[in-house]
Amino acid sequence: MKTQAAEFNLIEKYFLPLSNGGAGAFNLKDDAASLDLPANQSLIVTTDALVENVHFLSSDAPEDIAAKLLSVNLSDLAAMGAKPLSYNLILGASKNITERWIKLFSDSLATEQRKYSISLIGGDTVRSNGPLFLGITAMGFLEKGTELRRFGAKVTDDIWVSGVIGDAAAGLKIAKGELGVANNDYEQYLLSKYRRPIPRIELGLKLKGIANATIDVSDGLISDLAHICRFSKLGAKVFLDSIPISEALVEVVKVDRNYYELVLNGGDDFELLFTADKSSYDEILSISSNLEVPITKIGELNRLDRINILDSDGVGFNLKKSGYSHF
Amino acid sequence: MKTQAAEFNLIEKYFLPLSNGGAGAFNLKDDAASLDLPANQSLIVTTDALVENVHFLSSDAPEDIAAKLLSVNLSDLAAMGAKPLSYNLILGASKNITERWIKLFSDSLATEQRKYSISLIGGDTVRSNGPLFLGITAMGFLEKGTELRRFGAKVTDDIWVSGVIGDAAAGLKIAKGELGVANNDYEQYLLSKYRRPIPRIELGLKLKGIANATIDVSDGLISDLAHICRFSKLGAKVFLDSIPISEALVEVVKVDRNYYELVLNGGDDFELLFTADKSSYDEILSISSNLEVPITKIGELNRLDRINILDSDGVGFNLKKSGYSHF
Repeated sequence: MKTQAAEFNLIEKYFLPLSNGGAGAFNLKDDAASLDLPANQSLIVTTDALVENVHFLSSDAPEDIAAKLLSVNLSDLAAMGAKPLSYNLILGASKNITERWIKLFSDSLATEQRKYSISLIGGDTVRSNGPLFLGITAMGFLEKGTELRRFGAKVTDDIWVSGVIGDAAAGLKIAKGELGVANNDYEQYLLSKYRRPIPRIELGLKLKGIANATIDVSDGLISDLAHICRFSKLGAKVFLDSIPISEALVEVVKVDRNYYELVLNGGDDFELLFTADKSSYDEILSISSNLEVPITKIGELNRLDRINILDSDGVGFNLKKSGYSHF
Repeated sequence: MKTQAAEFNLIEKYFLPLSNGGAGAFNLKDDAASLDLPANQSLIVTTDALVENVHFLSSDAPEDIAAKLLSVNLSDLAAMGAKPLSYNLILGASKNITERWIKLFSDSLATEQRKYSISLIGGDTVRSNGPLFLGITAMGFLEKGTELRRFGAKVTDDIWVSGVIGDAAAGLKIAKGELGVANNDYEQYLLSKYRRPIPRIELGLKLKGIANATIDVSDGLISDLAHICRFSKLGAKVFLDSIPISEALVEVVKVDRNYYELVLNGGDDFELLFTADKSSYDEILSISSNLEVPITKIGELNRLDRINILDSDGVGFNLKKSGYSHF
């Protein structure tokens, strides 16, 4: 870990405990960290950055920002079917970042990393004369050759998604003051779904040998499905009414049907979207039941060159704004 | 690699070629990359970030920024004795970053990565509503247990440094308009040393079994020596006139002896500073000769609790600004 004089005490006090005394982290005091992998495993590496007022709001709590930063990276590992191992952190601290902010931020990282039995192994703390920016490189591992990939979907596959979709996008609208929900519990729930996405690590591990193509829903459900379709050179039909949405979001959509946009294009759900052979139907429901994570069939692949979204009458739903312009 | 619609074409066009079709990079099109290590090797991981107007100037050329970003990360791998393998990139693009800037930036990365036979395996391209910021997580490998560490110096060790020291700090002063050098060739040379540090990869590999403690000079010569001393619980004496400085810097110091500060505290040299047993003296000079990299003995460790800097008369040199306040 970089140790410029001014940042040294900060690292020592708040970030060193996150290394958990791990052997290869060298107490964050060396030029780099050293990692050993179990035999016959591949290292899985991903990097995601978050910028103030682009990916989170200045008003978001440091605890939420820390949790989200780690979760969005772990979600990428989940989508590969990898088991998390460790991470590196970039903190680009803007002028208004206080020591208290850093304490709350690092406390939250500590809580989150415990859930996945991972630890910090290095990084860089720098000053930013602009917005706060953050980056994590997360590392995980899996048995060689068992990566869940975005391509590989078969034309006869079903399309499945975990959890519920659209909550995070609604939560962001609430946080920005663009949406109000009469029921306060629902409003808080939607906010929490925006602030605290849950990476589907366990599900990713279980999908090996079952999912033919997998992605985490970050750009938006249809947009991410379009990635799978594009890489697999297939089309898809999605049954609008099958897409799992929460009770809270039902209230929102009831008031204005246009909010279905949040479900289709909202993004930031960090659920796993995957395709699997029809013969895996029961096995997938059994995984859902064992993990206590909803997993719902939302459509089927086909040989067409587009994604059709059908309502219960089989009528195509019109998207105001296409989430898959690059499809 | 993250593939938000707006950034997709950019990645495809400029960053995809940097992945060199490497098997585990998945054409930068999946959620994460996959890396395999040769048997019995440890992965070495380091992260360094650079921020506009903190670590580089807005006026710096994209080619120089790219080369420096990669070099400062590879320098950390060099200081561990690791062989570079691949890297992840964060590009936080400010509003005034043009496509031409990205082209020049990625062309320069291509040139640099070729020198070390490495490639890009992923990353994240985000928008910044403030300054340009950049981060690299570089990965390398080495035989298990052969890391060059910062601690481990012995009380009878000599202190050595590669290359020449202080040029980069003088170059930064020139770039900021704070220093002029009458000889234009010297001025250009010093500027180039600031803009294009060279990671001492080959030297790091050769120092295994020879160096007892190693660090790259990024904070400043004395400050980084202080890290080695602190972690090894030793003191040191440094012979001021032994510190290797370039012909160009001699011209600067001739005009004003105060510029010796740049040598002792300037930083950003990215040379390797290491300690080794006296019996390794000839072997080190032979490595220097084989690699055609100057390596100079600049001092000796001792049991004192401080670093003494002695001029040729054995008189202690006073540092205006301590580079090792945390020592």
